[in-house]
Amino acid sequence: ARDDEMNGAGNLMDFLDEPFPDVSTYEDFHTIDWLREKSRDTDRHRKITSKSKESLWELIKSLLDAWSGWVVMLLIGLLSGTLAGVIDLAVDWMTDLKEGVCLSAFWYSHEQCCWTSNETTFDDRDKCPQWQKWAELMTGHAEGAGAYVLNYFLYILWALLFSFLAVSLVRVFAPYACGSGIPEIKTILSGFIIRGYLGKWTLLIKTVTLVLAVSSGLSLGKEGPLVHVACCCGNLFCSLFSKYSKNEGKRREVLSAAAAAGVSVAFGAPIGGVLFSLEEVSYYFPLKTLWRSFFAALVAAFTLRSINPFGNSRLVLFYVEYHTPWYMAELVPFILLGVFGGLWGTLFIRANIAWCRRRKTTQLGKYPVLEVIAVTGITALLAYPNPYTRRSTSELISELFNDCGALESSQLCDYVNNPNMSRPVDDIPDRPAGPGVYNALWQLTLALIFKIVITIFTFGMKIPSGLFIPSMAVGAIAGRIVGIAVEQMAYHHHDWIIFKNWCRPGADCVTPGLYAMVGAAACLGGVTRMTVSLVVIMFELTGGLEYIVPLMAAAVTSKWVADAFGKEGIYESHILLNGYPYLDVRDEFTHRTLATDVMRPRRNDPPLAVLTQDSTTVEDVETLIKDTDYNGFPVVVSRESERLIGFVQRRDLTLAIKNARQKQDGVVSSSVVYFTEDAPQLPASNPQPLKLRRILNLSPFTVTDHTPMETVVDIFRKLGLRQCLVTRSGRLLGIITKKDVLRHMAQMMNQDPESIMFN
Amino acid sequence: ARDDEMNGAGNLMDFLDEPFPDVSTYEDFHTIDWLREKSRDTDRHRKITSKSKESLWELIKSLLDAWSGWVVMLLIGLLSGTLAGVIDLAVDWMTDLKEGVCLSAFWYSHEQCCWTSNETTFDDRDKCPQWQKWAELMTGHAEGAGAYVLNYFLYILWALLFSFLAVSLVRVFAPYACGSGIPEIKTILSGFIIRGYLGKWTLLIKTVTLVLAVSSGLSLGKEGPLVHVACCCGNLFCSLFSKYSKNEGKRREVLSAAAAAGVSVAFGAPIGGVLFSLEEVSYYFPLKTLWRSFFAALVAAFTLRSINPFGNSRLVLFYVEYHTPWYMAELVPFILLGVFGGLWGTLFIRANIAWCRRRKTTQLGKYPVLEVIAVTGITALLAYPNPYTRRSTSELISELFNDCGALESSQLCDYVNNPNMSRPVDDIPDRPAGPGVYNALWQLTLALIFKIVITIFTFGMKIPSGLFIPSMAVGAIAGRIVGIAVEQMAYHHHDWIIFKNWCRPGADCVTPGLYAMVGAAACLGGVTRMTVSLVVIMFELTGGLEYIVPLMAAAVTSKWVADAFGKEGIYESHILLNGYPYLDVRDEFTHRTLATDVMRPRRNDPPLAVLTQDSTTVEDVETLIKDTDYNGFPVVVSRESERLIGFVQRRDLTLAIKNARQKQDGVVSSSVVYFTEDAPQLPASNPQPLKLRRILNLSPFTVTDHTPMETVVDIFRKLGLRQCLVTRSGRLLGIITKKDVLRHMAQMMNQDPESIMFN
Repeated sequence: ARDDEMNGAGNLMDFLDEPFPDVSTYEDFHTIDWLREKSRDTDRHRKITSKSKESLWELIKSLLDAWSGWVVMLLIGLLSGTLAGVIDLAVDWMTDLKEGVCLSAFWYSHEQCCWTSNETTFDDRDKCPQWQKWAELMTGHAEGAGAYVLNYFLYILWALLFSFLAVSLVRVFAPYACGSGIPEIKTILSGFIIRGYLGKWTLLIKTVTLVLAVSSGLSLGKEGPLVHVACCCGNLFCSLFSKYSKNEGKRREVLSAAAAAGVSVAFGAPIGGVLFSLEEVSYYFPLKTLWRSFFAALVAAFTLRSINPFGNSRLVLFYVEYHTPWYMAELVPFILLGVFGGLWGTLFIRANIAWCRRRKTTQLGKYPVLEVIAVTGITALLAYPNPYTRRSTSELISELFNDCGALESSQLCDYVNNPNMSRPVDDIPDRPAGPGVYNALWQLTLALIFKIVITIFTFGMKIPSGLFIPSMAVGAIAGRIVGIAVEQMAYHHHDWIIFKNWCRPGADCVTPGLYAMVGAAACLGGVTRMTVSLVVIMFELTGGLEYIVPLMAAAVTSKWVADAFGKEGIYESHILLNGYPYLDVRDEFTHRTLATDVMRPRRNDPPLAVLTQDSTTVEDVETLIKDTDYNGFPVVVSRESERLIGFVQRRDLTLAIKNARQKQDGVVSSSVVYFTEDAPQLPASNPQPLKLRRILNLSPFTVTDHTPMETVVDIFRKLGLRQCLVTRSGRLLGIITKKDVLRHMAQMMNQDPESIMFN
Repeated sequence: ARDDEMNGAGNLMDFLDEPFPDVSTYEDFHTIDWLREKSRDTDRHRKITSKSKESLWELIKSLLDAWSGWVVMLLIGLLSGTLAGVIDLAVDWMTDLKEGVCLSAFWYSHEQCCWTSNETTFDDRDKCPQWQKWAELMTGHAEGAGAYVLNYFLYILWALLFSFLAVSLVRVFAPYACGSGIPEIKTILSGFIIRGYLGKWTLLIKTVTLVLAVSSGLSLGKEGPLVHVACCCGNLFCSLFSKYSKNEGKRREVLSAAAAAGVSVAFGAPIGGVLFSLEEVSYYFPLKTLWRSFFAALVAAFTLRSINPFGNSRLVLFYVEYHTPWYMAELVPFILLGVFGGLWGTLFIRANIAWCRRRKTTQLGKYPVLEVIAVTGITALLAYPNPYTRRSTSELISELFNDCGALESSQLCDYVNNPNMSRPVDDIPDRPAGPGVYNALWQLTLALIFKIVITIFTFGMKIPSGLFIPSMAVGAIAGRIVGIAVEQMAYHHHDWIIFKNWCRPGADCVTPGLYAMVGAAACLGGVTRMTVSLVVIMFELTGGLEYIVPLMAAAVTSKWVADAFGKEGIYESHILLNGYPYLDVRDEFTHRTLATDVMRPRRNDPPLAVLTQDSTTVEDVETLIKDTDYNGFPVVVSRESERLIGFVQRRDLTLAIKNARQKQDGVVSSSVVYFTEDAPQLPASNPQPLKLRRILNLSPFTVTDHTPMETVVDIFRKLGLRQCLVTRSGRLLGIITKKDVLRHMAQMMNQDPESIMFN
């Protein structure tokens, strides 16, 4: 009998012909019980292991089962790598479609079009006869005010079309496909159920609308949504294996790894992806998951590389190579960039949350399509005149990160060259800035202001939108401006004390591209509060340990500055805004409260709803279920002694009674429900007893009423509990649920405790 | 009253004039209670926070306290980086001292000596007049049989001298300085106390003897001991701040970060170091520790770089750059190397453990000095004739990893050159091997056999010894041999189907150095079972994402092969051998046992030793303390009801009674000990009662007797408990300690349960 008792919850086999499909699953918007899931998986594993000794076929099946985790990882890597490649290609093409079309093959992007053309020279890479702007194609004139206006108009029109399509698809087919998805994935990974959030429709629609949203030129990126897409892939492949589809705990291990694969393909940074999943997204991250995440991230990165969407056989999104080291004195501007990043993070989070709250509470939220159209219109209208905002944000970042080589034709590299210079092209000394650079500085400043403002309104609309790229853009622009300023100062003032030691005339001392990269890291850090994973992602982009110190200095400064204004990053803020029941691992609970202050019933509440082990009738139980909405009930020896023997889930209880009423003869309303090991022999006149020990969890978690809440919070976090019973000297006093813990924590931090969406 | 009750344990202030220094600390070879440590830290933090509002000075103090963690990290990084640099320089010099001396300055190593010499040409880098071999210096003859024998003799003599010094210093001053230290550090980090293991003496002696041991030419590395040295630094700096020195839990956070710094300087791989600490060494690794570890690892790496012991301004130990990509077909030899690595790992672990057990149980263990001398003698005797074993192991690995450039003078690069070749030096096509390569192959094979055998006997002797380097050497030799074989096959058989697709004549298709690196990763993985951190360390060495797939394939294959023969890596095996109470996070406990099967008292044991809340006398307590050796006692309402109210530590109880007897009037043997909130008013004739509620832990951890052991194991692991009480329907039944859990796990796995050293 013990074997069955052990896993008290969920084993109804005994009196059901076939198990109910819903037994031991969770309802939507409920939290899972990690301990129970783990215990169920161990049971499953044990069954397979013992069976595997019976026959060769069972042995093979057990081996397949053991390997299924790696298979799922392989599939996730392949699919998410492929999707990322397809998205990259489609975005490239559609972004260029806003400006013109390739005559030789309309599915070619601008670069591909001119690359295949023989008439392209290196100096004039961007111009080739096959690629025609819309005005040229329609009117025959490539230049002039008329052509400009027509191109402008068509640019806006395409943008509006793309974003309208995106928001409509989201609205009609998959409302969960909007946003970045990371706050929800964090919540899901912490043990919450949101049905359909990682479903097939979401996967499909998010992939399509992501392409549309990014192509429309809105100030958003594809990185966050790619994590969501990868997690959808993970969920999809979970359903192939009952090991993962039937166990919410195991499923979450797969999703953690999928998140790593998502970041891996977003940046081409597999190690950064794993650390991002570990630092930012995941809740429960055992070592096994670390290995598997790494595998999935690698497969995804290499799938992406074989698709080679950027055409440069590089894995990474922004590949840069710098030729000069950095100097100690440069730490000052780097740290200033860190401060800027922290301030930007704070500003962005506050403003964006205020705007999103407004959207939730006012009429604004009722017209999501109109909102998207309006924001797209404004974005396109303002973005087109400025060459730095007209192009896609990733191209902008790429250019800002780049070091100016001798052959660079960009406006940003318009320096006054020394005609006598005969150095190798890699190692160009600092030069005075030419008019192009000053022009670029103005345009970059305008672009910076524009990006800062528009991103606040963009993030949170009903289309897929990531904020890695816009944040990085803000930082890269600011960084590049600072970099050019430092460079010109160093050039014109060699004799200043600060420059004297490290910047002799004719030396290449300042790399403005590095400043852009440091600024990008700082801004991204300010918004998300990532540190290690951020630096590792940046490290994988440059591939050199050299620049870790500047990046680390900026990331840590930015985190400190931003933390000084508010502990929550953008994802936590959105979790709070949406009231998800997320128990953050990072919040330290330091208040001096005890379990007795948090447990229910409170002082003036009615007593705790309990069942007794041998004196409750079926009718009593049904009344209790009808009158309350608790998820479960403690079972005690008797109401007088209040000695706890177990805990029974409401869901299991309802199913068991319903089933017994239908299938078991003699079970009527007055039947007594027994949770004891043996029901007494009753006279035949009495109604047949209903034995329910099988659904009783005999090992409910208990703490004493004197337990400090910090310990309770720790237990809830580390063990992933759903509820915990409170006792004093062996008597049952009350119950603490995850919701109670979250409410209490919110109260202690003076937040609105009623906003927590939870059952 | 509640504030004081909350933290039941350890608050004796009330009836002590000043608190005993030992209160709430642990005895040697005991395990710590993580939950209690955490709760104590929260209390401390709360006190500081509330005080900080009182005055500016307190505010500053609280800020300093908050920053002390980062300060400790900075100090650890600086000291461990410096020590690593000094060790590297000293090892370099002393290794060369075995062969000769620099006449211009005796403290120069061979390379430094010839580097400063003007007469050195590039071709003859290794020969310069200032550097003289011993025979040349003593007899004037550099060549000839006599000189060879004299050099041979002196080589052995120096080796014996160094190793004798090393083992003597360890024996006399710091017995804990021997071995790699990683098994013990793992155990300490999991919550065990080994006093002096991370002490100042250990730090000093380990640093000195590590230099001696490595210089003696024994088959051992400095990487593991460097982790130990870094942890000693961490422990040293902990004592500067009461936050860390007085809290064993917080101290372990610092030690985790120090371990990361240790690996960081050992390989010049900061990210790999952090992941090593996370994957291999640490037990409890919160996100905060992740950030701090990263900081410490970076500081350490940059300190080392500024010392620049390798003279190449590179951070990493083995810097390599390959010029050719790898091809899919090469995965076959890479996976074969993985299999070799797994087999080597299994062989090494089994043979080494068998030898170490023999050392423990037979006469052998009584003569550690003799053993070291003998092994050194044999090593030096066999190593000198073979040029690949004569030099230091890291130089050997370095050479094996290297790609053959056009200018390479090494024997391994003695290929037959095509006289018409006019390619750039970087991109040399595959060439037929010359006689030097064939000669080298023989010598490498002999070196491989020698290293495999001697390493088994070396690891575990009473001197500092790491096994990263010897393992990597075995793998690198095997890998290079395989690499050359594949290269020559590809050259001579262009037309074979497997080579046809990727290796045309005149192309550079096979990089034997890459095979050496893959082999090194495979062998290291087989021995330690690292995966992610291993690949990241290797990735940081090469700095290119390109080679992650070969490395990953080899590492995972090697882990799978080795795991098939036995789950434990070398560190876990040594932990088991030494009987440390280490609860491995990775072991899945899958047996169907319940808490009731593990708890004490067992069926025929005497009943559980408990105290009652208001009917035990001081004498009873003292008898109980004298008669038993339990670490603590549960307190119940009464023996009849068996209702649990709390748990009291033996140590606190002893101190409290001792103190009360000395300082509190009227407390005599017949005084009743009260654990209740209020002692009843007794008539004056009765002896004065002793109130001990203050030392009672009112929130002891309980589980029911029906709780599956897998859940209990999970709770012990995740919450870091020392003991857990078992109840049924509110009645106290028994107690489970960490020792019981470990014994039970060992029993279930058919290991010797009595070997666990524990209190």
